[in-house]
Amino acid sequence: MILSTPEPYNQCCHTGVNKMLADNTSKEIYQALVDIPILDPHSHINPHAAASKSLEDILGYHYYTELAHSCGMDKKFLAAEIPGQEKVLEIIRHMNQFDNTAQYSWFLEIAQVFLDFKGDRITPKDTDFLWTSAQKKMASSTWEAQVLKTSNLEKIFLTNDFDDPLEGFDTTFYIPCLRTDELVFHFGRNNVQNRLGKTTGINPGNAAELDKCINGLFKHFCNKGAKACAISLPPDFSPAKSSNSDLDQCFKNGDFDSNIWKNGIFWKLAEACSQWKLPFDLMIGVNRNVYENGVYQGKDLYDQRTSLIQYAPLFNFFPDVTFCISVLTSNQNQELSSYSWIFPNVIAHGHWWYSNIPVHIEQDTRARMQASPKTKQIGYYSDMYKLEFGLPKFNMYRKILSNILARDFLQTKKHTLEETIALGKLILRGNSERIFNLQN
Amino acid sequence: MILSTPEPYNQCCHTGVNKMLADNTSKEIYQALVDIPILDPHSHINPHAAASKSLEDILGYHYYTELAHSCGMDKKFLAAEIPGQEKVLEIIRHMNQFDNTAQYSWFLEIAQVFLDFKGDRITPKDTDFLWTSAQKKMASSTWEAQVLKTSNLEKIFLTNDFDDPLEGFDTTFYIPCLRTDELVFHFGRNNVQNRLGKTTGINPGNAAELDKCINGLFKHFCNKGAKACAISLPPDFSPAKSSNSDLDQCFKNGDFDSNIWKNGIFWKLAEACSQWKLPFDLMIGVNRNVYENGVYQGKDLYDQRTSLIQYAPLFNFFPDVTFCISVLTSNQNQELSSYSWIFPNVIAHGHWWYSNIPVHIEQDTRARMQASPKTKQIGYYSDMYKLEFGLPKFNMYRKILSNILARDFLQTKKHTLEETIALGKLILRGNSERIFNLQN
Amino acid sequence: MILSTPEPYNQCCHTGVNKMLADNTSKEIYQALVDIPILDPHSHINPHAAASKSLEDILGYHYYTELAHSCGMDKKFLAAEIPGQEKVLEIIRHMNQFDNTAQYSWFLEIAQVFLDFKGDRITPKDTDFLWTSAQKKMASSTWEAQVLKTSNLEKIFLTNDFDDPLEGFDTTFYIPCLRTDELVFHFGRNNVQNRLGKTTGINPGNAAELDKCINGLFKHFCNKGAKACAISLPPDFSPAKSSNSDLDQCFKNGDFDSNIWKNGIFWKLAEACSQWKLPFDLMIGVNRNVYENGVYQGKDLYDQRTSLIQYAPLFNFFPDVTFCISVLTSNQNQELSSYSWIFPNVIAHGHWWYSNIPVHIEQDTRARMQASPKTKQIGYYSDMYKLEFGLPKFNMYRKILSNILARDFLQTKKHTLEETIALGKLILRGNSERIFNLQN
Repeated sequence: MILSTPEPYNQCCHTGVNKMLADNTSKEIYQALVDIPILDPHSHINPHAAASKSLEDILGYHYYTELAHSCGMDKKFLAAEIPGQEKVLEIIRHMNQFDNTAQYSWFLEIAQVFLDFKGDRITPKDTDFLWTSAQKKMASSTWEAQVLKTSNLEKIFLTNDFDDPLEGFDTTFYIPCLRTDELVFHFGRNNVQNRLGKTTGINPGNAAELDKCINGLFKHFCNKGAKACAISLPPDFSPAKSSNSDLDQCFKNGDFDSNIWKNGIFWKLAEACSQWKLPFDLMIGVNRNVYENGVYQGKDLYDQRTSLIQYAPLFNFFPDVTFCISVLTSNQNQELSSYSWIFPNVIAHGHWWYSNIPVHIEQDTRARMQASPKTKQIGYYSDMYKLEFGLPKFNMYRKILSNILARDFLQTKKHTLEETIALGKLILRGNSERIFNLQN
Repeated sequence: MILSTPEPYNQCCHTGVNKMLADNTSKEIYQALVDIPILDPHSHINPHAAASKSLEDILGYHYYTELAHSCGMDKKFLAAEIPGQEKVLEIIRHMNQFDNTAQYSWFLEIAQVFLDFKGDRITPKDTDFLWTSAQKKMASSTWEAQVLKTSNLEKIFLTNDFDDPLEGFDTTFYIPCLRTDELVFHFGRNNVQNRLGKTTGINPGNAAELDKCINGLFKHFCNKGAKACAISLPPDFSPAKSSNSDLDQCFKNGDFDSNIWKNGIFWKLAEACSQWKLPFDLMIGVNRNVYENGVYQGKDLYDQRTSLIQYAPLFNFFPDVTFCISVLTSNQNQELSSYSWIFPNVIAHGHWWYSNIPVHIEQDTRARMQASPKTKQIGYYSDMYKLEFGLPKFNMYRKILSNILARDFLQTKKHTLEETIALGKLILRGNSERIFNLQN
Repeated sequence: MILSTPEPYNQCCHTGVNKMLADNTSKEIYQALVDIPILDPHSHINPHAAASKSLEDILGYHYYTELAHSCGMDKKFLAAEIPGQEKVLEIIRHMNQFDNTAQYSWFLEIAQVFLDFKGDRITPKDTDFLWTSAQKKMASSTWEAQVLKTSNLEKIFLTNDFDDPLEGFDTTFYIPCLRTDELVFHFGRNNVQNRLGKTTGINPGNAAELDKCINGLFKHFCNKGAKACAISLPPDFSPAKSSNSDLDQCFKNGDFDSNIWKNGIFWKLAEACSQWKLPFDLMIGVNRNVYENGVYQGKDLYDQRTSLIQYAPLFNFFPDVTFCISVLTSNQNQELSSYSWIFPNVIAHGHWWYSNIPVHIEQDTRARMQASPKTKQIGYYSDMYKLEFGLPKFNMYRKILSNILARDFLQTKKHTLEETIALGKLILRGNSERIFNLQN
């Protein structure tokens, strides 16, 4: 992969971009923020296939399949045997039912910026044009580099399975991150136990061996330049240490779905984060498979009744581990803001999934910015599966941030323009650089 | 009842109406929305006495009696033997303690639009004028028709007791809706069991007979043009199927207050909705009789700790039933928005009761509009007991909606003016027409 | 203490003051509100040392020590043996990490208004100037009077330990308030039981003696002009009466940490409030010592999962006690607004601690103003420990309130300018005067 010096697309000139900015100060700030190369501290990019290969890769994103399905699209159109162009047409056919959403706006911006789409609204008759345009462009061997350059993307965190070899890509650009959901929640399924044995060379059959395995994993990941450990957690999860003898019992009974197991291995992961000096990204609040017949990745929802008080024992026990916390609902944001204001090791991290919607981003960002140290906040991550989403998602956030900075800091004369932009830069990437130790 | 072609009151010209609109685009949108005849998908109108007969009918609405009582009005003034004019004076005497509220604004607009009131503030000395004006106007045999015409009301859903004969009114204008709270929560009281037997001709003494009764009810209601089934539910309600043998046991023991009973009959109602293709309106989150000494209908409050996760089994089990969900608090709105984004059969429905306040309507509407398909949202219903409230309540909503449409869609150039107005119309009535199957 | 007629600092002329006001109507309202002498219905002022004696008193406020610590400041710098100037320098050294916060803005305004600071941003190199300026000014025997005059502070509620002699200060200016946390939550610690015996002359060894003690306390406080009883409560507290025989058992077993004890003595305090006609300030939702290694007073956080439904039995049982309710999170605000709309004896009280942040104050105030009677709301209290914080905290609130009044009442023509200002005055002090019975 050859990356030339980024010459990002001049996003302010594009008709589809600066419409959400409240006034001229916002625009000035936005232009400055857009010029800052993006450091994306959380994504699901596959570094071996980072950019899309067709429009199906774009519209196969669960945000579109689930919205189309919610509006009445039959899941059968998403089956593997359906040709991509047909699949895409079916999704676009339902788009006029969700062209009000932020998710639709991302796609429109992708079409405009990356696929030469000139219109302001995407209808089924545009499918052929978009499909063909995507086919042509994405076939280019430089497509990935073009997307990165246009998007001004400089570094992107991955989300790697624990048994990912982490080979064949530039780990200083696509930064490894150890995802641990499977170990905690699916140890007895998906061949996880064996895969852990295979990847670490130690077959874990008791707590002591589990320690060695985890140590091996962290060693492997850290050697490959991993900068974070991450996990997503259900609303009722309450971390607590389990004793090794209790964990031994879990191995003996093959009991890997009990709270003893989940708590025990989670706690060991936190210990490893402490030992290996890795920040631990906790993504708190998701219930899996709530809508049983949903589309792939479109089944998860949540229970708003959760609290960071559940994590107080963890935050207290590991003062040297930095916990980057994402919450799933705006309801939880005041807690996140307050906990990051009080606990030195708690960082407010991005705007996750169901809260990655302008009205919530705006409210949540303002709450954090007014109450919690500016060095304890990581503004945004893309959560994307394909590179093309970095630009519209970061643009959405940068517009909201620019409006807030203009209104709450510059126009109130709390900050000069220079200070305001510096604050935006810190929130956008400076804090990530420091917290994830990217200078080394 | 004779309804001439609606020539609605030109609401934009009235001094009391367009003050809340942010700018000229909002006003243009508002004017267009006001011209759309109102389809009100939830009210408590009595079709045999739909319009008020005196000012007492207006100010007897619990919003006023409870606010006056909260400010110190003795409940004795609400006793049946107190003459209406005296009652009304006592409420107005306390109004200067709540003339800051949205609820007061509704009354002011009623006075201005319907009662020839020329002032900007209602004080006790206005009581005589208002009382007399109401007496004169409401005595007219065309009062109901006048109110409907002025308000541009085209169709109004009712909330009918299960044993309502549904006779003596135009069921294509006043649309029946089967209210089922009594069956689920009060089966052992208020003579409900006997009334069910009487109205269906089957005395329910076991689960199988209950099935027949419910089938009879739905048949009766559907024959009379009912378009929905509805129920209000406490915050801790978690639907789950009960077995028929468990329900038989409930009949045997006269146990109609257990969760087995409530869950069991509720589930059967959902089955009937499926069979009879009726949408099921769930109004989630109210605790009854919290303030024990409150005025009539002014005793209910809530516990914000509730979640739609409680309804996931229901939504999953009945994919062919459309659930129109109202939530009582703005806290629950993000869940509602997310669940309607994911579940094909979940619709976000209006702004209910304690959330029917501008600051919450605005935040909640924006959250829905930015995240959930536009076809999965029913904007507003009046919840009114008397026709005169349709106009001020819908106006409040239309103003807020116009501001949102102007700011988030028109001014950001996401939509043209025409598209923006079409979006407003869909939210205001198009979705109701489709979801409640009103074209047939 | 000599208090001349207040000639408050003309706050609108100061560069640092009116930057947050949205437009000219807001400014006009703000100017009028600033002219109203402040009645502060809740503070932690020590009347024997009300004003600061050095910059250490200002920056020793937990809002600064906890933010600096959260940004990495070692707690050792806060030890008693560290000289004040060094302590202050260390806090200011971390300030550039939290100069985005509302808390920082309060300090900046104090520096500008009280310490002759001319800059717009405080950096470590300003420490000497600020320290010296504070030393000089605060050494003056009239410093307290100057602060009061500049701040236009007219009456300030205290928070007194139950065994405070309440002597040596003007109790019509510094108004006593009986704080009861220790009795309910720490009866078996800190020598509380003995101290209660000493202060009341009755050694409490059973429920009957406890009644006499409580009666003695209230008599003492009321004789000294106390105008409220107050307590802060954890999120899971659910008041319920305990029987005297159960309380006798608590005494017998030295069991003062059970719910029986806490509920029992709390209920008796409410009975005493009823008998002595004192409003009861309930500050609901704080968990103590969540961050175990936090700085002094910087350890407490919360669990958003709490509800006012827990207090319904209390509100019902004591209709003649006025409960002034503060909630810790914005999530709880809709409940507070709704409960004060329904219960005659529930008052929405101020913006407490983690909710004392502009974005939450704005949302919460609008919700209360649109839904609940204007006579059932006490706008703001300082919660301050040192007098200098009254001005910046009340200014923050007055600016937000002015913007709301301008936008929601004046510009919508709901109120004239005069009525708008009268509404602001009622919220700012009129309601406190009436509710706390300050006219007598």
